[in-house]
Amino acid sequence: MKKRIVVVGGSFGGLTAALEVKRLLGNQADVIVISSDKDFVFMPSLPWIIMGSRQPGDITLSVADILKPQGIRFVHDTVKGVRPDELKVQTAKDEYEYDYLIISTGPHLSCDEIPGLSPEKGYTYCTFSMEHALKSREAWNRLLANPGPIVLGSTQMASCFGPYYELAFEMDQELRKRKMRHKVPITYLTSEPYLGHMGVGGLGKSKRFMEDEFAELDIQTVTNQAIDEITPDEIRLTGGGKLPFKLAMLAPPFKGVQGVASLGNPRGFIPADNYYRHPKHSNIYTIGVAMALAPAEPTPIPTGVPKTGFMTVKMAKAAAANIAADMRHLSPSQEKELSVICFMDMGRTAALMVAEPILPPRQKSYLKKAWWVKAAKIQFEKYFLWKMRHGYSRLP
Amino acid sequence: MKKRIVVVGGSFGGLTAALEVKRLLGNQADVIVISSDKDFVFMPSLPWIIMGSRQPGDITLSVADILKPQGIRFVHDTVKGVRPDELKVQTAKDEYEYDYLIISTGPHLSCDEIPGLSPEKGYTYCTFSMEHALKSREAWNRLLANPGPIVLGSTQMASCFGPYYELAFEMDQELRKRKMRHKVPITYLTSEPYLGHMGVGGLGKSKRFMEDEFAELDIQTVTNQAIDEITPDEIRLTGGGKLPFKLAMLAPPFKGVQGVASLGNPRGFIPADNYYRHPKHSNIYTIGVAMALAPAEPTPIPTGVPKTGFMTVKMAKAAAANIAADMRHLSPSQEKELSVICFMDMGRTAALMVAEPILPPRQKSYLKKAWWVKAAKIQFEKYFLWKMRHGYSRLP
Amino acid sequence: MKKRIVVVGGSFGGLTAALEVKRLLGNQADVIVISSDKDFVFMPSLPWIIMGSRQPGDITLSVADILKPQGIRFVHDTVKGVRPDELKVQTAKDEYEYDYLIISTGPHLSCDEIPGLSPEKGYTYCTFSMEHALKSREAWNRLLANPGPIVLGSTQMASCFGPYYELAFEMDQELRKRKMRHKVPITYLTSEPYLGHMGVGGLGKSKRFMEDEFAELDIQTVTNQAIDEITPDEIRLTGGGKLPFKLAMLAPPFKGVQGVASLGNPRGFIPADNYYRHPKHSNIYTIGVAMALAPAEPTPIPTGVPKTGFMTVKMAKAAAANIAADMRHLSPSQEKELSVICFMDMGRTAALMVAEPILPPRQKSYLKKAWWVKAAKIQFEKYFLWKMRHGYSRLP
Repeated sequence: MKKRIVVVGGSFGGLTAALEVKRLLGNQADVIVISSDKDFVFMPSLPWIIMGSRQPGDITLSVADILKPQGIRFVHDTVKGVRPDELKVQTAKDEYEYDYLIISTGPHLSCDEIPGLSPEKGYTYCTFSMEHALKSREAWNRLLANPGPIVLGSTQMASCFGPYYELAFEMDQELRKRKMRHKVPITYLTSEPYLGHMGVGGLGKSKRFMEDEFAELDIQTVTNQAIDEITPDEIRLTGGGKLPFKLAMLAPPFKGVQGVASLGNPRGFIPADNYYRHPKHSNIYTIGVAMALAPAEPTPIPTGVPKTGFMTVKMAKAAAANIAADMRHLSPSQEKELSVICFMDMGRTAALMVAEPILPPRQKSYLKKAWWVKAAKIQFEKYFLWKMRHGYSRLP
Repeated sequence: MKKRIVVVGGSFGGLTAALEVKRLLGNQADVIVISSDKDFVFMPSLPWIIMGSRQPGDITLSVADILKPQGIRFVHDTVKGVRPDELKVQTAKDEYEYDYLIISTGPHLSCDEIPGLSPEKGYTYCTFSMEHALKSREAWNRLLANPGPIVLGSTQMASCFGPYYELAFEMDQELRKRKMRHKVPITYLTSEPYLGHMGVGGLGKSKRFMEDEFAELDIQTVTNQAIDEITPDEIRLTGGGKLPFKLAMLAPPFKGVQGVASLGNPRGFIPADNYYRHPKHSNIYTIGVAMALAPAEPTPIPTGVPKTGFMTVKMAKAAAANIAADMRHLSPSQEKELSVICFMDMGRTAALMVAEPILPPRQKSYLKKAWWVKAAKIQFEKYFLWKMRHGYSRLP
Repeated sequence: MKKRIVVVGGSFGGLTAALEVKRLLGNQADVIVISSDKDFVFMPSLPWIIMGSRQPGDITLSVADILKPQGIRFVHDTVKGVRPDELKVQTAKDEYEYDYLIISTGPHLSCDEIPGLSPEKGYTYCTFSMEHALKSREAWNRLLANPGPIVLGSTQMASCFGPYYELAFEMDQELRKRKMRHKVPITYLTSEPYLGHMGVGGLGKSKRFMEDEFAELDIQTVTNQAIDEITPDEIRLTGGGKLPFKLAMLAPPFKGVQGVASLGNPRGFIPADNYYRHPKHSNIYTIGVAMALAPAEPTPIPTGVPKTGFMTVKMAKAAAANIAADMRHLSPSQEKELSVICFMDMGRTAALMVAEPILPPRQKSYLKKAWWVKAAKIQFEKYFLWKMRHGYSRLP
């Protein structure tokens, strides 16, 4: 009998999981993807949207167009709850029964935790969706017309640091190109205990590397800080400090997504065993940002471990393989093995970061800045979008 | 009718301003230079006088000899006061009427602020005049004969750091050449909040750069300190610390020169608008060290922003151009634009430093150590002296 | 008349001194070496015993075999006391008269000062003898079979840091080769005030160098610490901190050796004048670790200045030359001149360190990491063992 496999989430994790499960199981599985977003956006390129070197169409694909040719059904709807005992997912408009459920819902941006933070009603910007990025682009263009201090970085409980480092490098470079860098003080403000921590306890000599790079570029840094409140022109830190700004872009605190939060911890992140299975409901798999992952060691200001698209894709393939194994009554074969390869844009150049595993102590870690990393970053964007467009989930 | 242009000061700023004004205005202007020094000394080379690699004649020119062929009158006298309402400069021996006044008097070394500091009556040496340098050379030679601890650096309120960094490198190298470095502990003591600050908030990664260089050379550092008192063999710090020495060379606190101080702030530095004009007396222009310039941000121990010969020459040309414009009833065209290129001697090698503008955030900053910078530093000394000898103020 | 020269100690210092004295004096001297060790072990290679890349036979020579062909008598016995007024050395089994006494007894490992430290009865390992190294090798092999946290470093009052830095690099590399580095957190715990201090106040930029290397390799560091107690699985620091371990290797506090301690300071280290002579008994010479040597400046947690085999060999030759001079009624010619050349193993590569003199300020200091230093380190081991085997004390 055909198994019903429901995938919640239509980004890196959801799409890859759905394509992989279908590839592995073919007609044995009815696969449904439920997502509130009609589009897949290649999120790593959102900073380039802000900077104006990408247009939305360059990095956006229709989820339905990806899935339909592979025989996967797409439901454009919002998940409202999961009833694991009834094997049902509740959405805003309907409900769906499942034999296996894969959750890849990403983060809920918990802006309410800090007054003045929300990118919709607040005074700061961020870069987690095309909508955010386009608003940020406008704000950036306003700043170019009317220069003043920029603050970039992350709040307490944020689990994403890379893009704000990238924006610091990219904005610095653009301002120099326009001969106006001296009119724009740039400050990197972060909950990380030190520069280069990135939520993963640093990576090799990332601390010194970032300190040197930022010093070289006159980018000021304020580390190990929580934010109390944001006013239209000032960030107020918990310790009493104040940072004036004309443009502020901050990663908000992360939570798990509301509709699946009942399966998770108090912040809504869902626990998973070594095979991505929920500890209580072994037919529920969680991957990507939705999955709970404890930091190597707690930081003075709480931060979360980032999960990149690269990591999420690997998790998705492992979860899919484990579901296929389970249907054949085999033991799951794909153990959780969290490692990461990351290309961090640095303007004219870029840095390659490798961490295996993602948290220390590591078998392997690598950090190198080189022009070819920039080329590789651009190549990878093209390649991944091509792969997704054609549903080639099997390719690395 | 001819305008009377009086220039006070006969060093980088005064000479360049006088030559430029004469070049631009020719017979329309009577230019007088008043200076208490008969000689122009290429001050950046004074550390080499101390080290014995230059003789006074190598870097000294007669001011009169420079000015006379260009039709500029030189008055060897000391300015005692300015009466802006009467358009008169009072000197020790006479008084001079002006239509335009250019003040480029450099610093007054305010040694009295720290007991025991004065290079004349005190126990330490410095390097702001040929006389200082020659006394310092004697003291250095005594130290070579009778080795012991050296302390180099700057006091609170000093606005000049470069030469003391240079001396640290040069003395270290000379002591190694003589196989006696291990008998001479060298300490760099400074009011700068950290090594490589240099009164300009650092320059790219100058902090780490200097820390590494000094560590490599066993040069100890004591930063962020004010001095209470100096005894014949000990520097007493405000915090209670004591530094013994056999040779100490310290940049004293800077003030504006007495004779023009009435135009300035409490420390005697004279304010200037964006075109180097006095805010109240628009026919008085101030350039170089005499001009008030606020630091990027206050340092814990007060320091001043250094103004190098390079900066002063640029200011002089701009002020001259603005005077010429004013005489033609044009708006002043040369805005204050303080940037700096500096060659810091490091013994066998040297470091090139570029800061545009001088204070952060900067459009451009650059710091590089290379052997060719040393060659360039030597070249520049020759070039500049040649240029001055021939009155070619137009050349860069 | 023949002079009786007694040498206490049969390692780098004792053997070199005995061979040199015999070479210089020939039949004018009866030379006796007293040592409780029958074997000479090339101690710098003990970390390689632990790692399994050397076998005991590779780096062990019989003391008797070295000395006999040169006409030097070897007594395998333990010194119990020195009676300088009677010119006698008391051993467990006998007593020996001397005209000149050379003491090169190395350290007593004062493990009792810290509960749980002793490599015999305690919970930690060290690397000061073949026996220690073989026990450490077993412990290391147990750890490879059953991975967990490693702690490496030194206690308060230790005077030896190099081998524990080396072990950190070597263990890191071996664990990576076995693809299990991520299962083994490595912590370097030390009484040094900062990484790279090494008991000598650092060496050029050794601080930053070690910080960068350890950061690159995910080796955690805990500096400036004293140890209160060691339990079977935890190191308890004086400040209250706790470090869990599965394998701990720590340099214990150093003292002078009991049998000669009456000649020395409260910790049993023996003072020596500029010619290695005891201040009170000018026919007693002390070299190597046995000799008292004050640190450049006291460290917050007390540490001792290391004396390497290289240094001890130089001291031994100088002491021998001074004895020969004394016998000829000449003034001693060999002044104390403590400099050091050291090859620090870093796994695949190694670092060359040169310090002249050993404590700052230095005439010369050098620190360089390169593959050829590793080759040189291996070469030197072979060369030194060959030289010793043949009694060629004259060679450098």
